[in-house]
Amino acid sequence: MMAYATQMEAARLGIVTPEMEIAAGDEHISAEQLRALIAEGQAVIPKNKRHQIGHPKAIGRMLSTKINVNLGASRDCCNIDVELAKVQEAERLGADAIMDLSTFGDTRAFRRTLAAQCKAALGSVPIYDALVYYNKELAEITSDEWLEIARIHAEDGFDFMTIHCGMNQATAARFMRNRNRITNIVSRGGSLMFAWMQMTGKENPFFEQFDELLEICRKYDVTLSLGDACRPGSTHDASDATQVEEMITLGELTKRAWARDVQVIIEGPGHMPLNQIASNMKLQQTLCHGAPYYVLGPLVTDIAPGYDHITSAIGGTVAAANGAAFLCYVTPAEHLRLPNEQDVHDGIIAAKIAAHAADLAKNIPHASDWDDEMSKARQEVDWEKMFSLSIDPEKARKIHDENPSEIKDACTMCGEMCAMRNMNKILNGEVVTAK
Amino acid sequence: MMAYATQMEAARLGIVTPEMEIAAGDEHISAEQLRALIAEGQAVIPKNKRHQIGHPKAIGRMLSTKINVNLGASRDCCNIDVELAKVQEAERLGADAIMDLSTFGDTRAFRRTLAAQCKAALGSVPIYDALVYYNKELAEITSDEWLEIARIHAEDGFDFMTIHCGMNQATAARFMRNRNRITNIVSRGGSLMFAWMQMTGKENPFFEQFDELLEICRKYDVTLSLGDACRPGSTHDASDATQVEEMITLGELTKRAWARDVQVIIEGPGHMPLNQIASNMKLQQTLCHGAPYYVLGPLVTDIAPGYDHITSAIGGTVAAANGAAFLCYVTPAEHLRLPNEQDVHDGIIAAKIAAHAADLAKNIPHASDWDDEMSKARQEVDWEKMFSLSIDPEKARKIHDENPSEIKDACTMCGEMCAMRNMNKILNGEVVTAK
Repeated sequence: MMAYATQMEAARLGIVTPEMEIAAGDEHISAEQLRALIAEGQAVIPKNKRHQIGHPKAIGRMLSTKINVNLGASRDCCNIDVELAKVQEAERLGADAIMDLSTFGDTRAFRRTLAAQCKAALGSVPIYDALVYYNKELAEITSDEWLEIARIHAEDGFDFMTIHCGMNQATAARFMRNRNRITNIVSRGGSLMFAWMQMTGKENPFFEQFDELLEICRKYDVTLSLGDACRPGSTHDASDATQVEEMITLGELTKRAWARDVQVIIEGPGHMPLNQIASNMKLQQTLCHGAPYYVLGPLVTDIAPGYDHITSAIGGTVAAANGAAFLCYVTPAEHLRLPNEQDVHDGIIAAKIAAHAADLAKNIPHASDWDDEMSKARQEVDWEKMFSLSIDPEKARKIHDENPSEIKDACTMCGEMCAMRNMNKILNGEVVTAK
Repeated sequence: MMAYATQMEAARLGIVTPEMEIAAGDEHISAEQLRALIAEGQAVIPKNKRHQIGHPKAIGRMLSTKINVNLGASRDCCNIDVELAKVQEAERLGADAIMDLSTFGDTRAFRRTLAAQCKAALGSVPIYDALVYYNKELAEITSDEWLEIARIHAEDGFDFMTIHCGMNQATAARFMRNRNRITNIVSRGGSLMFAWMQMTGKENPFFEQFDELLEICRKYDVTLSLGDACRPGSTHDASDATQVEEMITLGELTKRAWARDVQVIIEGPGHMPLNQIASNMKLQQTLCHGAPYYVLGPLVTDIAPGYDHITSAIGGTVAAANGAAFLCYVTPAEHLRLPNEQDVHDGIIAAKIAAHAADLAKNIPHASDWDDEMSKARQEVDWEKMFSLSIDPEKARKIHDENPSEIKDACTMCGEMCAMRNMNKILNGEVVTAK
C-alpha cells in the first residue's frame, strides 16, 4: 500500500517517487528539484495507478517541452488496427503522450487495449465518449452519467482526462453577452457541454460536482486536464473576454484541485496571431498559478489547411519558448479529415521540431548537444552521421540519395562550391579550386 | 530620358514613379507614403531599368513581408527546362522575387532567358558565376574581373545582386581571431571570397572598389543586396563577433550606397535559436539604419534536414514579425540536395505562410481579411469556399476528398460532433443530437 494518493501528495510529503526519479533523469535535474516543482503544481507526472508506464515523463514549463498525439476511431475511420498502428508509430517517434479521442465502436474495449499495450501516458476526453457509451441523445444524458463516464475512464487506467469544467453557466452567459466571434465555440467537448446546458438549463455537472470529480482523480492519480471550451478557433477570436473568463475559472478550479493533491494541466489555444502568444502564455501563468499549459497549436494563421502542422509548429515554438509546457500535435489533415498514418507521422515530427526549438530557446540543459553534434557532422561533411542525427533519418537519407552529388564531400546543392568543403581546405592551408 | 537614375533618387527628388504607384497599391498605403520610405532607404523597389517587371513590389519592414525563391542549374542538376518550370511554378504561387544561383552551363544565356521571361524581380550572386564565366581557377580571377562579372549581371537586367562586400580583410581577421565556430563560414559566396583573399593576400575587390560597384548599380538601378558571408550556419554560431563585425561594416557601406542613391537590402541569418531572433532584427535596424533585412531562415534548430522548410518558417515568422522585410524560402531539400519541383512548391508555401503570419502579427493593413473570410467559411461549413480560400486549394481539396464524411456538414475528424455544426444548431434554437 502506497503512503500517498497522488504524485502531488507524495511530493508534498517530501517523498521522491520512482516516477520522479526516472522523469528527473530525462531533464538533467535532481529528483528533489522535480519533487519541489510537483509539490507546487508547477510540474505533473501523468500516471494512473492502474497504468504500467515504461518511462514516466514530467510536464512543466521549466522542463523540456513534451508533445501529445491525438488518435481514435470514428464513424468514418473505424479500423482499430489502423489506429493501433498509429499508436505504435507515435511511440516509436517518441510521443510523450497519446490521447484517445474515439467516438465510434466499442470504445471501452479499445481504451482497455490501449492501456494494456501503450507505454506512453494516455489521455482521453470522457465527454465525447458519453454519447457513444450511453447511446443516448445528448439532452438525455444525466448529470450523474457525465460524472460516471469520467470514473470509467479513470478505472480503465487513463493517465489524464480533459474535462471542460470551465464551460459553466457563467462562462456561457459571458459568451452570449460578448458575441463577437466568427467561429463561436470550436472545442468539441466544450460545444457539446454548451449545447447540453442550453437544452437542459442545468449547470455543467463537472463544475457543479467538481469535488466528486476530484475524488475520482485522486483515487487513481488521474491528472486533470482542464479543457478550454472557449479556445479561439480563428485568429479573429483570440484573446477575447470569453477565453479569459474561462481561464479565470480554470485558475480557481486549479486551486481547488491542488487542495486535494490532484495534478492539473490547463488547456489552451487554438488559433492566435503570433503577437498575442507570449502575452497569452504569461496570462495563463498568473491566472492559473503556474499550472502546466497544454496548447493545441497555436495556429498563427487560418489560411493554410493542408499545412496546419506548419502553422502550429510556428505558434507552438513561440508558445513553448514563452512557457507552454505541453504541445498537442496538429497534422496536415487538421480542418479537413481524420489524419492517416502519414499525417500522424508528419504531425509528430513538426511538433517535435517545435518542442526542441523551444527547448533551445529556453536553454533547457543539454538541449543544444543534439544540434551541436549535427553541426559538427555538417562541418565534417559526414553524411552517415548527419543522417543518424536527423530527427527523421529515413527521410533525410531518402532525399539526399534521390540525387547524390558527383563530388564525394558535397551535395548537389553547391557541388564544388560547397562552403564546408572549401573552408575546410583553406583553413588547412590547401588550395581551393571550386570551379 | 528619365529625370532620375534610381527609384531612390526619384524618391528624394519628390518624384512618385509608376513603380511606386503600383507597389503602394498592394500595401494599402499611398504612393507618397511609399516614396518617403524609399527616400529614407527604409524600403526598396528592386527593378533594373532593363527588366520588364509586370508588377513591381516594394520591400521594407513597414510593408507586407515578401518572399524570394532560389533556383538555378548546377553540374548535378543541369536541365534548363526543369529550372524554367520551377520559375513558372514560383511565379504562379506568388513568389515576389527569384534568385538565379546557376553554377553550370551557359549561365549568361540562361540569365538572359530568365530576364526575358520572368516578370518577378530577379536576383543573382555574381561571385558564383565568375568561376563558370571565366572558367579559371579561383585564385586566378583578378580584382577587375570580379567587378566585371557584377557589371555583366547588371547589363543582363537583373534587379538585385548579392555581393559579399563585408567579407573584407578586417572581417576575415576578426573571424580568425575569434575562431569558436562549429561551422565556420557557410555562405557560398562568402567562403569563396574568403578563400580568394587568403590565397591572393588581396583585399575584397567589392569592398576596395565599392564606389565602382555603386556606379554599376546606379546606372541600371540594381538594388545592392549586401551579402552576409558570416551568417551563422549552426545555432551554436549565432550572434557571434564575426557576424556582428560584418554587420557593422554592412551598415557603413549602406550609408555610402545611399549617398549615391543606390537602393540597399541587407542579408541575414541563417541558423539561430528562437530567443536570439528578435534582438538580431533590432540590431540590424540600428547598425544598418533601417535598410530592409533579407533573411535566409532563420532556422531555429539544426536537427531537422528534410524539414527545414518548417524550421525556417518558424524562424522566418518571428524574424518578419520583428522587422525582417524579405524572407528567402528554404525547401525540404536544404542541406541535402538541390530542390526538385515538389520541394520548390513546398518551400514557397511554407515561406508564404511565414510571411502572412508575420503580417497578421504586424497588423499590416487588411492582412487579416483573408483569415477572417476563411474563418467565416469554416463557421458556415462551406467546403468549396474553404478550398478556394486555402493557400494551396488543390492540396486542401485533395486531403479532404481522400476521406469525405458521411455527414454532409462536417468532416471525418469530428463527424456528428462537429463543433461548428452543433454550435450553429444550438444558436439557432435547434436540438443537437451529435450521437
